[in-house]
Amino acid sequence: MMKSSLSWLENMQFQCDTRGLITKMDATEEHGGQNTAPSPKELVLNAMMGCTAMDVVSILKKMRQEITEFKMDIEAEKTTEHPMHFKMAELIFMLKGNIEPEKAIKAVDSSLTRYCGVNYMISKTCIITFKVILNDSVIKQGPVNFIEPKQGT
Amino acid sequence: MMKSSLSWLENMQFQCDTRGLITKMDATEEHGGQNTAPSPKELVLNAMMGCTAMDVVSILKKMRQEITEFKMDIEAEKTTEHPMHFKMAELIFMLKGNIEPEKAIKAVDSSLTRYCGVNYMISKTCIITFKVILNDSVIKQGPVNFIEPKQGT
Repeated sequence: MMKSSLSWLENMQFQCDTRGLITKMDATEEHGGQNTAPSPKELVLNAMMGCTAMDVVSILKKMRQEITEFKMDIEAEKTTEHPMHFKMAELIFMLKGNIEPEKAIKAVDSSLTRYCGVNYMISKTCIITFKVILNDSVIKQGPVNFIEPKQGT
Repeated sequence: MMKSSLSWLENMQFQCDTRGLITKMDATEEHGGQNTAPSPKELVLNAMMGCTAMDVVSILKKMRQEITEFKMDIEAEKTTEHPMHFKMAELIFMLKGNIEPEKAIKAVDSSLTRYCGVNYMISKTCIITFKVILNDSVIKQGPVNFIEPKQGT
């Protein structure tokens, strides 16, 4: 069982305590906040990147590839009707190092078809695409399509 | 368009930059991390709380209710098969103040049927339930069921 707690600070500012680790959230100024911390939807974008990034780094490490730099960008578009949610998102992987292109592609493919639970959840209401850039060259891009897990697990 | 960026720091530690606002993530020790920051899935739990908390606080403010304390807990259970994702989650709202019970219920209901995009997205693969505790008394509990938005928006 995973657990977390939230406390209201003031205005639109909230603080979460997860195993003693603190996360703050605030609304943007256009939504009545003061822009002191990411919004909840921005945290979801960050979690989408972090979840697949952890997969890709650990898979490439197991494949004994030497990553000197690993960065990602995400861009997402929201619906205009409530409940406003992501309708399109692109995950861009930017890797540098002594990495074989087919291994970089295999690591990203494994994460985005089988392992990354956060992107799996968001993919139910959002068309997610990805692009892999290795040492400044695009080596793969396409749609994210997860293999469905077995039922009842 | 919403945007964010991620950089790998070391091991399983990553840092996101969202409009200049920093969010860190780390894996737990059992997943090869060092537990210096919440995991991506924990960030999603925090975003689930923050998204509905912002709705509820702003709706109650518009209703001129006096909130002296607003806290939330979330508990979630993951699947054991990949891609591991939330299969059940409970959102517990704990409000204190000079608040009419029916207005607290209406604020939570509005958020969790119509406004909260983060819980809407997660509800596609997870059974979400909620409980509202006002001044230490449970005043409402039940399943979360969103009204589907119009297509193509």
